[in-house]
Amino acid sequence: MSHINFKPGTLLSPTAVVMVSCAGENTKPNIITLAWVGTVNSDPPMVSISIRPQRYSYDVIRESGEFVVNLVSREMMKACDFCGVRSGRDVDKFLETGLDAVSAQGMSAAPAILQSPAYLACKVKNMADLGSHTMYLGEIVGMGIREDLVDKKGKIDFVKADLVAYCHGEYVGLTKPEGFFGFSIARPEVLMRRLKRKQHT
Amino acid sequence: MSHINFKPGTLLSPTAVVMVSCAGENTKPNIITLAWVGTVNSDPPMVSISIRPQRYSYDVIRESGEFVVNLVSREMMKACDFCGVRSGRDVDKFLETGLDAVSAQGMSAAPAILQSPAYLACKVKNMADLGSHTMYLGEIVGMGIREDLVDKKGKIDFVKADLVAYCHGEYVGLTKPEGFFGFSIARPEVLMRRLKRKQHT
Repeated sequence: MSHINFKPGTLLSPTAVVMVSCAGENTKPNIITLAWVGTVNSDPPMVSISIRPQRYSYDVIRESGEFVVNLVSREMMKACDFCGVRSGRDVDKFLETGLDAVSAQGMSAAPAILQSPAYLACKVKNMADLGSHTMYLGEIVGMGIREDLVDKKGKIDFVKADLVAYCHGEYVGLTKPEGFFGFSIARPEVLMRRLKRKQHT
Repeated sequence: MSHINFKPGTLLSPTAVVMVSCAGENTKPNIITLAWVGTVNSDPPMVSISIRPQRYSYDVIRESGEFVVNLVSREMMKACDFCGVRSGRDVDKFLETGLDAVSAQGMSAAPAILQSPAYLACKVKNMADLGSHTMYLGEIVGMGIREDLVDKKGKIDFVKADLVAYCHGEYVGLTKPEGFFGFSIARPEVLMRRLKRKQHT
């Protein structure tokens, strides 16, 4: 077994695929689908999104200084793809997809997507031109989870959220959890408890 | 249906989970597992990784100016978790996990992991202290794909790679592809061709 050399490329997989919503004072709400996204800091919580300057949302976010990262469920997959291949210059993406724009915690204009399992509302803290893309660093200032995904104790049901990942040009679903952070060194009683919980849900 | 407000946090899901390998002139090879990782640019291809300054690999990467992002298969999941919860100060992670360090294209010292489905060898271009974490921006200068995952035409078999994602503290597997970039607006004949190919593999 060994590795074959390939030309360097954007092979990191899987990645999240998210629908980023934005709006401006005089700009109607728009959605852009992005896979070039990641968590970059825990405290304060921050994400990076990278956008080509040619894209319609690039200027909207630069001028408004805010954006909302909406997680994508399998049910939203076709709308998600549509918002990645069409431009807000030509179509009203909320209208075309039937998704609903709702107000997002902490945002002046950028809406969240009602149907999304969860949204992260971000204020732009920094931006950097890296070549083909500009990276926006956003601090998460508001967060919403769809009410049907939260139990009485405030625990989020990620299995029910049915999220989608992106894998080198293809959309994939997720299996049920197969391990948890720390499981490799967990004591037998912890493993038993966590496994039992998994079987009951 | 509506969203419940939550305290802002690092909820972006799913994310990749990768094993980052590094080494220095006088430092033995080490592995750190990270989920705070993302593609940030296409041309040149670049990734971001975020590490707490307290971590052992933080200094190794700062001093060597290079790191290798190794994708993680389901088979490597337990080793991947182990490298996230143990420190290179205390254990030799290659020795403990049984994984093999092999030379990576374009790197002076940082190795790749032989068993990994694919690796991205990166040179540090920039770093930024964001609070709890420091974000390293790396340009991908070398890339290797495990030979058993590449067919005669150079196409990569991502289903066989059996990659793992991270979802808010839990490791999950991936389903087979359920859509491809552009499928929402693809012509019927393209959809047919792509679907047929899926059934044959």
